[in-house]
Amino acid sequence: MAEVITPRAKDYSQWYLDIVKNASMAENSDVRGCMVIKPHGYAIWERMQRALDRMFKDTGHVNAYFPLFIPKSFLAKEEQMAEGFAKECAVITHYRLKVVPGEGLVVDPDAKLEEPLIVRPTSETIIWHTYKNWIQSYRDLPLLINQWANVVRWEMRTRLFLRTTEFLWQEGHTAHATKLEAEAEAHTILEVYRTFAEDWMAMPVLTGPKTDGQKFPGADYTLCIEAMMQDKKALQAGTSHFLGQNFAKAFDVQFQTQAGQREYAWATSWGVSTRLIGGLIMTHSDDAGLVCPPRLAPIHVVVVPLGKSDDDKANSLKAAEQLKESLVKLPRDEFLGYEPMVVEIDKRFNLSPGQRFIDWEVKGVPIRIEMGPRDLAQQTCVLARRDFPGKEGKTVGVPLGELPTRVVALLKEIQKNLFDRAKKYRDAASFEVNSYDEFKKKLEDPGGFLWAHWDGTRETEERIATETKATIRCIPFNRSKETGKCMVTGAESAGRVVFAKSY
Amino acid sequence: MAEVITPRAKDYSQWYLDIVKNASMAENSDVRGCMVIKPHGYAIWERMQRALDRMFKDTGHVNAYFPLFIPKSFLAKEEQMAEGFAKECAVITHYRLKVVPGEGLVVDPDAKLEEPLIVRPTSETIIWHTYKNWIQSYRDLPLLINQWANVVRWEMRTRLFLRTTEFLWQEGHTAHATKLEAEAEAHTILEVYRTFAEDWMAMPVLTGPKTDGQKFPGADYTLCIEAMMQDKKALQAGTSHFLGQNFAKAFDVQFQTQAGQREYAWATSWGVSTRLIGGLIMTHSDDAGLVCPPRLAPIHVVVVPLGKSDDDKANSLKAAEQLKESLVKLPRDEFLGYEPMVVEIDKRFNLSPGQRFIDWEVKGVPIRIEMGPRDLAQQTCVLARRDFPGKEGKTVGVPLGELPTRVVALLKEIQKNLFDRAKKYRDAASFEVNSYDEFKKKLEDPGGFLWAHWDGTRETEERIATETKATIRCIPFNRSKETGKCMVTGAESAGRVVFAKSY
Repeated sequence: MAEVITPRAKDYSQWYLDIVKNASMAENSDVRGCMVIKPHGYAIWERMQRALDRMFKDTGHVNAYFPLFIPKSFLAKEEQMAEGFAKECAVITHYRLKVVPGEGLVVDPDAKLEEPLIVRPTSETIIWHTYKNWIQSYRDLPLLINQWANVVRWEMRTRLFLRTTEFLWQEGHTAHATKLEAEAEAHTILEVYRTFAEDWMAMPVLTGPKTDGQKFPGADYTLCIEAMMQDKKALQAGTSHFLGQNFAKAFDVQFQTQAGQREYAWATSWGVSTRLIGGLIMTHSDDAGLVCPPRLAPIHVVVVPLGKSDDDKANSLKAAEQLKESLVKLPRDEFLGYEPMVVEIDKRFNLSPGQRFIDWEVKGVPIRIEMGPRDLAQQTCVLARRDFPGKEGKTVGVPLGELPTRVVALLKEIQKNLFDRAKKYRDAASFEVNSYDEFKKKLEDPGGFLWAHWDGTRETEERIATETKATIRCIPFNRSKETGKCMVTGAESAGRVVFAKSY
Repeated sequence: MAEVITPRAKDYSQWYLDIVKNASMAENSDVRGCMVIKPHGYAIWERMQRALDRMFKDTGHVNAYFPLFIPKSFLAKEEQMAEGFAKECAVITHYRLKVVPGEGLVVDPDAKLEEPLIVRPTSETIIWHTYKNWIQSYRDLPLLINQWANVVRWEMRTRLFLRTTEFLWQEGHTAHATKLEAEAEAHTILEVYRTFAEDWMAMPVLTGPKTDGQKFPGADYTLCIEAMMQDKKALQAGTSHFLGQNFAKAFDVQFQTQAGQREYAWATSWGVSTRLIGGLIMTHSDDAGLVCPPRLAPIHVVVVPLGKSDDDKANSLKAAEQLKESLVKLPRDEFLGYEPMVVEIDKRFNLSPGQRFIDWEVKGVPIRIEMGPRDLAQQTCVLARRDFPGKEGKTVGVPLGELPTRVVALLKEIQKNLFDRAKKYRDAASFEVNSYDEFKKKLEDPGGFLWAHWDGTRETEERIATETKATIRCIPFNRSKETGKCMVTGAESAGRVVFAKSY
């Protein structure tokens, strides 16, 4: 049963936690910083996985699996990586417990590992150590491999889905014979991420490189997709790294070129994680609960048969079952990832209709169909769309015979509306600012994405971050060709970059 | 390129490793006991996951995800579990590394955990700790939850897929209001496992409970599926445990019954793992390489266009592409899990036809279609089935127009033949034995599943294991109602049980 959801306007952070809780998506576990992903949240992740996995395969990638544990010495081999991740590593030092009378179960001091293992925070090191044996010649390239896995980064401040000690993700690790090819790969994947974010999550994103200050440890550069949440903060939703030859050099991965020379391989890595679920929530949901884009919804349609007398109940239940049968049998298509439509029938006649409707709104089911005796007497029903909660989203008197066609069309319409609405929201909260004063004012009120000139130095970037908490989210590919002066130092700027506060 | 595969008759263990290596399925990593699952092996696991996941969902289960780490104290709460797993736990004691000048990257002694964490060897404890908050009333039951995850058991002697320190699996954890319902669940899942093993893996299995000596730590009883490998050893391929109220008591999970009383919940857990890939290999493969049942094959059909002149090459390649197009467009059906048929075209004209054929045999592709100029001049091709390697499996002069129909039928025929052949093999290596002498002889020559009377005591079971290395694999559901005398002690026996050496 849903509890009260804090309104967004009152406390956005609390609203977020209320949505995650009330829609039964996840909860904190008693293991510090680790979450339990509950069935309704996990079902969204499964749909995300399926869609992304198909896109990876359609662009030539295959899946594999590499060990969870990484010898400490591997991490040490790539300097930036060691610096970037050393402070947040779970370290395995022993491989056995034993029972000591009086003390219970204790770590067995005789079972100490010679070399500590760390739980992977990301897998570049173990994978490039492995690639050394797989790559001898240009004929072995490219290697286009992805892995679906859990990773661990010991975070001090965690928030469900957005930042957790353990999280689920995919990490792609590719090796190429040329720089050009590796860079093209990093861009191909960024385009996969953009397409997934916009076409599946209905979440508009900016694309472009990160600044050097914000790039991945070990990367030459990092490309990203960057979304705006409803509180106008930015969420880094996916990153695709061009790693140059850094890992090939750290792990000595050389190959024989077609011309017979020895060269280090070129690399990329890229990932998105369960953080995307947080992004989905904060892009679309409202004070009534989760709003889930139809293409990723665990349940597409809920049918709520109504009635008080036994006859009415039996009658509406039968109509609900007939509808379900006709919907799940519809031809599978790309829109729902070649999966059947998922239709749930709410048989809880003991609860009030209002309570039943509210429950499904909280869970974010895109379409609700209400079937009462009066509707059915006229061979009609009520069709409610979740993107407009409550009465606003209801259409009464919809003929039963039209339902399959209407439902299919409405799912697509909701998907489109969610994207359009989110994009409109983001664009309305995006501003060009031309002075640091204007920047600081706009950042606090109304907040959003601030397009400003910057001199390109790490110093200025850090100064702005320290003074305002805003960081450069990306150097957008679609910025206009407009040089200018840095809003802070007045030095030359090659173009505007996007600043925002972020998660 | 394939290296030489040791014949099975010469050295079965080496043959197994050669198959895993030559078919590019997995390799040992430099992390003790952990494997790298390579793309061709992982693709089989993905198909296994997809089929099993659908069966779990069709029987009412949902997926969720629980933390990788388990506080040491949780493990200690269930005594049998602590005893069963303490000796093989990876233990996390620290959460940070740091760079010390001169020493490099070291474990930071200031970042010691107050309570050590273990990496899950199985998740009953963390899940039942969580269920305590989810289960208040009979209305919260049943909970039918599955998780796809990696687990770690510190094994001293490992073998790729069959026994590794880290492995991938699914683990179901269900909670029920009644004993009857929980026991029914354990049997439902066993039937899912049997169906999967026989209908998808084409691997015949015995089903039945384990003896008390062989059951899961913490279970009241364990049901299993048990298969015979080609070396006549048994492989435990899946287990479904009725846990009684053991975990509910250890974690104090009580609920209010419909009658208003407090009762401990009833539990099951069940799992299959990447070990199944080892079972698939050792059930079907031959001296020419992997043999993969069509329903789980990453590639169903390989087309090998042949020709020496540029014209011939272009011609056969075009025919191959047309065939591929017609095959991938076939309607999706249950046999291939509603996925499109996967067709690969081998364009390596620079290699000899023989070499190209052999490569695909090694990889276990069920159907190979050879298209040479002479075949094509007559609008025919050569159709080769992998279950009969080399010339034996070839049919020449197959009309191109018949191919889609022939291919669909042949995939089904191969699937059936693999099962029938494996069952025939197992049945021919299954014997009723009536004395311990006969038992010991038959166990060495010819080896296999020995159906024998046993007095039901742990002592006798252990004596037999010590003296012969054979264990009781299961008490088969399908044994005949035939009481007798224990072959060792002469005491009463309620029926025959199945002994074998095992993996």
